[in-house]
Order: sequence, then structure tokens, then C-alpha cells
Amino acid sequence: MSEIETISEQRCHDGVQGFYRHHSESCGGPMRFAVYQPPQAAREACPVLYFLAGLTCTEETATIKAGAQRVAAELGLILVMPDTSPRHTGIDGAIGDWEFGEGAGFYVDATQSPWASRFRMHDYIASELPALLKRRFPVDAERSGITGHSMGGHGALTMALRHPQQFRSVSAFAPIVAPSQVPWGHKAFSRYLGDDPATWADYDACELVRRRTFDGTILIDQGEADGFLTSQLKPELFDQACAEGGQSLVLRRHAGYDHSYYFITSFIEDHLRHHAEALGRL
Amino acid sequence: MSEIETISEQRCHDGVQGFYRHHSESCGGPMRFAVYQPPQAAREACPVLYFLAGLTCTEETATIKAGAQRVAAELGLILVMPDTSPRHTGIDGAIGDWEFGEGAGFYVDATQSPWASRFRMHDYIASELPALLKRRFPVDAERSGITGHSMGGHGALTMALRHPQQFRSVSAFAPIVAPSQVPWGHKAFSRYLGDDPATWADYDACELVRRRTFDGTILIDQGEADGFLTSQLKPELFDQACAEGGQSLVLRRHAGYDHSYYFITSFIEDHLRHHAEALGRL
Repeated sequence: MSEIETISEQRCHDGVQGFYRHHSESCGGPMRFAVYQPPQAAREACPVLYFLAGLTCTEETATIKAGAQRVAAELGLILVMPDTSPRHTGIDGAIGDWEFGEGAGFYVDATQSPWASRFRMHDYIASELPALLKRRFPVDAERSGITGHSMGGHGALTMALRHPQQFRSVSAFAPIVAPSQVPWGHKAFSRYLGDDPATWADYDACELVRRRTFDGTILIDQGEADGFLTSQLKPELFDQACAEGGQSLVLRRHAGYDHSYYFITSFIEDHLRHHAEALGRL
Repeated sequence: MSEIETISEQRCHDGVQGFYRHHSESCGGPMRFAVYQPPQAAREACPVLYFLAGLTCTEETATIKAGAQRVAAELGLILVMPDTSPRHTGIDGAIGDWEFGEGAGFYVDATQSPWASRFRMHDYIASELPALLKRRFPVDAERSGITGHSMGGHGALTMALRHPQQFRSVSAFAPIVAPSQVPWGHKAFSRYLGDDPATWADYDACELVRRRTFDGTILIDQGEADGFLTSQLKPELFDQACAEGGQSLVLRRHAGYDHSYYFITSFIEDHLRHHAEALGRL
């Protein structure tokens, strides 16, 4: 049996939109992901952009809703949309709560029982998936960028700040920038990582950027009509942390936009161009 | 109570993507539709493009998957995505078959019991919905175009050919062009319209275009890897009918593309530009 099972492949903007399944060592079970290969990938290795989705989402969400393939086809970027957690874990309490468990992996490596055996999305995204993709797709892994939405924006920022050799460009839509300071983060981190907030700092973008800056400008778009803006997202905390740490940041606030993919699709082109420029495609 | 109930309105590409509900006289019950208002609609009446969806779809399908809002915002087109049938009709046999009944209205006015009381999508799209929209949205109704996918492509072609004063431009993605000659049409028309195929001709694009041409070029895109191409769609029949009737047609066949919205989103921009040009927006 092949290492990667193809679920479907469909032509889109002269490239190929595929869905795939494989056995993940990090997550101890099957995982799904989506890959868009632009037309350029038929003849050369292409830079790759990871898009990490938010709470409740799957590998299908941004693939269907973000409208990123058109620009990826123009710029010659491979898009990778992973799932947001392991699935069908059978762990008691892993389903039924949209803020925690399946669909809410928070891109951490859980240290607490019973989550530590399966919920290891940090290792999956930072190491296992990139290595897997290199063996199957024409990715120029030296030129990888990462973006994401909400919980996935948190994932993108923390991945890039922790693994700058792996991710050379970073951006986010309405990210959770300070999980240690907001209810979503408290709930998830206390269960995945335990009650000592000192262990949370490695997954907190505001903490990380104070320790070490990212070599390049971070682009963040945030809707001002986002219902989670003041309770969970608090972009001003990241703005302040970047200022303190000396990090170059472009934080754009957009009047009237909410937390949905209607917001994301409105600005996805700017993000792909941001990454393409940083990855040498523009 | 307002004539139109707002379900949601969200900012998208500087315009407004809304979902609405109203009581339909044509369909004898509540109907939903989606409208995208481009930024230009805030200050002037805009041309309108109807997108009729296919089997199993709702007003959400093209709204989420087609990626049309970006180009509509650029061109100043209002987009209208209706549902594909009445819902919750309670009619025995109206649900459970994806090719017939709810989600499969086929854009006809049913004449047969028990369907005639509710399944009147032709009248709904040709008359009731345009009149309703004029009372609420800044539509320049004199400049209306229509497009659609599969069953909705059939709907678009037949609406435009029958109501050229109502719809000034027309295009379709992978349309059913000869329902009288294919299984989907046989099944739906025999139940909605009865067993006499003579009554089907008014809803058959190939029959209609032989009677009277449409004033303007018809644009059709068709994927050559479409699983329904040879059994249900048969674009060559419309090509031949247009040649016989003297209708201007651009029929583009695209290698590798299937019947999905990954196909539609790849070519949606061309369709919006086709309509914008015909409606005086380019």
C-alpha cells in the first residue's frame, strides 16, 4: 500500500486539487490533508504554503471556501490544507465540544493524559507532514510559508516563530495571538498541556515573539466586526509584543468584516502575494 | 413583518453577501435566496446576474464555492443565487431522491399532481423573484443576465430563450441542454409535466433555440472529464441545434475538468465578464 492514499484529484485552475489520507506517526492514526498543485508543479518544484484552519474546520474548509487556488495557480504556489486534529480517536471527551478535542487540536503536542497519545499537531505540522509531502509532491521545501485562520492563525504564528528554518514566511487571518490570556487558550492548553502556564509559553505567539523575532514581516488581517475580536483574538497584544520584540508586523484592521471565510476570501490574494514575494516567486 | 427576512449579511470584497427568506406565491411556501451586493450597489443601481444551481444544491452552494464575489465586486454586478426548489413541502416522494423533488425543481412549472401546487420554479425565477428583488435591492432590472450549472444551466438557457426581455445575457456551466433526450430530464419532466413529451419542449433548450434565437452570444463551458458528459449533458446536441437555428454560441470544452465547483470556479471570471460586457458594464 502506498504511503499516501489518494481520496480524490480534480482539475482546478489548470492545476490539481487533491485530497489525501495517510497514517500519521505523530497523531497515532489516519490523517487527511488537501494539496493544490498549480500548473507549474507539472514541470518544476514549487514553493509551498501551508494553510492551518480554525476551530471546527477540516482539510476541506479553506480548500472549498478560501478561493486560494486561482492566485496559487498564477504565482506557482503549492497549497497544503491539513486537518485541524486527529479524528475518530475514541478518547472520552474528544468530541462534542467545538472548542476542544477533535477539530480543535490547537497545533500543540499534548503532554497530558489521555491526549498525549494522539493530539500532537505541532509535531505533525512542523515535521511529519513536510517530510511526507517532499516524498510525494514537487515541493521546494526550502521555500515554505505558513498562514492560517483563528486557531490556525495561532498555529501559523507559533510554527513560524519556533521553526524559522522550516517556514520562511508567515501571515494570519484573525489569529489567536495570546492563547495564554484568553478563554479558548485557557481551556485547550490546560487540558492538553496541564495547569502550569509556564508550559504554555512555547505555544503563545506573544511570548515567542518577545524571545526571538521572525526574519521577515508578519502580515495579519483582522476584521473589526469579528465577534471574537475582544474576547479571544486581541490583536493589540501581538502588536505590542512585536513592538517590544522589534518584530516587523503589518496588522491591517478592516471595518465591517467578521470572522468568516467571506472575510478570508476577500484578502487571500494579498496573503498569497506576501508569501510569494518572501519565497522568491514575485 | 417585512416582505423579505434577512437571515445574515456579511461583508465580502467590500460588498455585502446576504442570505434571505420570503414567502413565495409561486412555490406556495417559504423560499431562501442569496444576494451579493458589490460595493457599487451602495451608490447606484447595478446590473444583476442570476446563478441557478444544480441537483442537490441550495442557495449556499455557488455562494460558497464559485468564488464569484471577487469579480462581481470588480465589475459592479449584483449576484443572485436562488434555491433549487421549494423545501419542506411535505409532499410524499419529494425527498429522498437526489434527481427529483426537493433540490431538483428543474426550473419548470409542474402541471401534475401533487407537484403543481409547489414546484413552480419557472414562474419563481422568471417573474416572482425579479419583482421581489426590485423592491428591496438596488438592481437595474433592465440589465439582468442568467447563468447556471448542470440542471441550473438548463434553467439558465431555457429562461433566457423564453424570456429575452427579462434576461439580456446568458451562459452556462455543463448544462443539461436536451432534457427531453436524457434520463435526468425524462424522470423529472414525466413527473412534473406528464407523459406527453410535446409538453416538454417549452423547457428544452435544444427545442427552444430552434424556434427562436437569443439576441447575443451564448457562452457554455464544459469539462471533458465530466462524468455526466455523454449520458446527461450532450453539449453536441445544443451545438447542432444552435447551428440549425442560427444561434451564436461559444462552446468551450476543457480537458481534464469534471462536473464540480472546482471546474466552475476555474472559469467563473470569464462568465462574469461575458455578462458584464453584454449588460454594459465593460
